Amino acid sequence: MPAPAIGPTGRSALRRKRERGDHDRTVVNAILDEGLVCHVGFSAGGSTYVTPMAYARIGDDLYLHGAPANRTLRALAEGAEACVTVTLLDGIVLARSAFHHSMNFRSVMLFGRAEQVADPDEQRRAAAALADHLAPGRSRDARGPNDRELRSVLIVRFPIAEGSAKVRTGPPLDDEDDLGLPVWAGEVPLRLESTDPVPDPALGPGVPVPAYVTGHRTRSPDPGPG
Amino acid sequence: MPAPAIGPTGRSALRRKRERGDHDRTVVNAILDEGLVCHVGFSAGGSTYVTPMAYARIGDDLYLHGAPANRTLRALAEGAEACVTVTLLDGIVLARSAFHHSMNFRSVMLFGRAEQVADPDEQRRAAAALADHLAPGRSRDARGPNDRELRSVLIVRFPIAEGSAKVRTGPPLDDEDDLGLPVWAGEVPLRLESTDPVPDPALGPGVPVPAYVTGHRTRSPDPGPG
Repeated sequence: MPAPAIGPTGRSALRRKRERGDHDRTVVNAILDEGLVCHVGFSAGGSTYVTPMAYARIGDDLYLHGAPANRTLRALAEGAEACVTVTLLDGIVLARSAFHHSMNFRSVMLFGRAEQVADPDEQRRAAAALADHLAPGRSRDARGPNDRELRSVLIVRFPIAEGSAKVRTGPPLDDEDDLGLPVWAGEVPLRLESTDPVPDPALGPGVPVPAYVTGHRTRSPDPGPG
Repeated sequence: MPAPAIGPTGRSALRRKRERGDHDRTVVNAILDEGLVCHVGFSAGGSTYVTPMAYARIGDDLYLHGAPANRTLRALAEGAEACVTVTLLDGIVLARSAFHHSMNFRSVMLFGRAEQVADPDEQRRAAAALADHLAPGRSRDARGPNDRELRSVLIVRFPIAEGSAKVRTGPPLDDEDDLGLPVWAGEVPLRLESTDPVPDPALGPGVPVPAYVTGHRTRSPDPGPG
C-alpha cells in the first residue's frame, strides 16, 4: 500500500515550476534517506535560526538528538513551529548565459512541530536509526545507549506530514537565441564520495574494518557523459 | 589588513562547545567560498521557511538571485530578518557507542537583513560572481545579462556582518570505558566530487570543454588513512 502523499497546504503548496515539485511520499523518503544533514529552521525572539543537524527517518517521522542545552533541540522540544530541509546537490548546470546557470538538486522541505521523545524504547530505536543512517548496519556493532545516557540526551520526533520535494535534473535551459554561441554548456555532475577511512588513534590492534566503512558511498555508478 | 571579525551578538554568540566555534572572517569566508548551496531561513505568518539557494560572495556580502516570484527572495528584498547557513560535510564519525556518533563539518550561520540590488552595475557584478562561484572563470565565457534580464531578475545583497562559523574535525570522542570495545571507530571522510561532464544535447560541434569543467572539484588531495 503506497504511503499517503504529504501536504499540500498553503505553505507547502508548490507555487512555481510545478514540474519540479512533488508531494509523493516515495520521492520524499528517498531524499530523506540519502541525505546526511538537515537544516532545521525556527524563529524565536524575532530571529530565525537555521542549524545543520544529523537526523534519521523511522517510518513517518524524523528523529533528531543532542544535548539538552542545544538551542534548536530545546525549541523543537518546546513545540516551536519548524521547517526541516534536506538538500542533495547533484550537479552544476552551466548555461550559455549567466542568468540561466543553475544547479541540479533534490530537496525536501517539511513543516511542523516536533515532540520530545520520553519513552526509553523509542529513544533506543532512535539511537539505532541515527547510527544506521550514518552507516547502514552500524547499530549492530556500536554499544547501545545506557540508562544514564538516555536520561541526559534530548531526542525529538518530527512528523513527515506536511511539505514537498523539489527536483531539478537535466541540461541548462538557454534562450533560443543563445544556442549558437560558441560556449560550452551542460552539467557537471556532483556526488558525495567517501575516501579512505581514518581509524581512531585510540583504536586497539586487530579490530576489523566493517564493510559499511570500506564500502561507504563509493558504490554509486558513474553516469558518465550523457 | 585582516577583515574584522563578525559578531558575536546575543544570537550569534557561541553558546556551547566554544572550541568548535569561530568568529574569524578568514574562516567564515573560506567556508562560504567552498560551499555551493546556502539554506536561507525566514519567518512569515507564523511559519518558518528554509530554502536551498545558490549564492556568491563579493567582499563582505552574499548575493542571491532568482525570479521576482520566488517567495524567499521577495521576503528578503522586503527586509525580512533572515538566517543564511552554509554547511560543508567533511566526514562521518563512527564512535564505539551509539550516542557519540557524529559528523565532521564546517558551517557558517549568518544573521541579518538583505537589501534589493537595483543598480545595473552591481547587478552585473553579482551575475558574474554567481557564475564564477559555480565554476571559477565562467563569467568570462558566458553571455552577460542584458537590460531586459536585469529588469526581470531579483537580486539581493546579504551582509556578512553577524554570525559565526563552527568546525568539527578529528576522531570520535568516546567514553574512557568504551575504548577497549572490539568495535571499529574512526572517521569516514566525505567530499563532494565531480564526475564526467554531460554536454547539453543542444551543444553544437567543436565547442571545447573549458578547463574549469574538466578540472572541477577533482583536484583536492586525498587525505588518505591518518
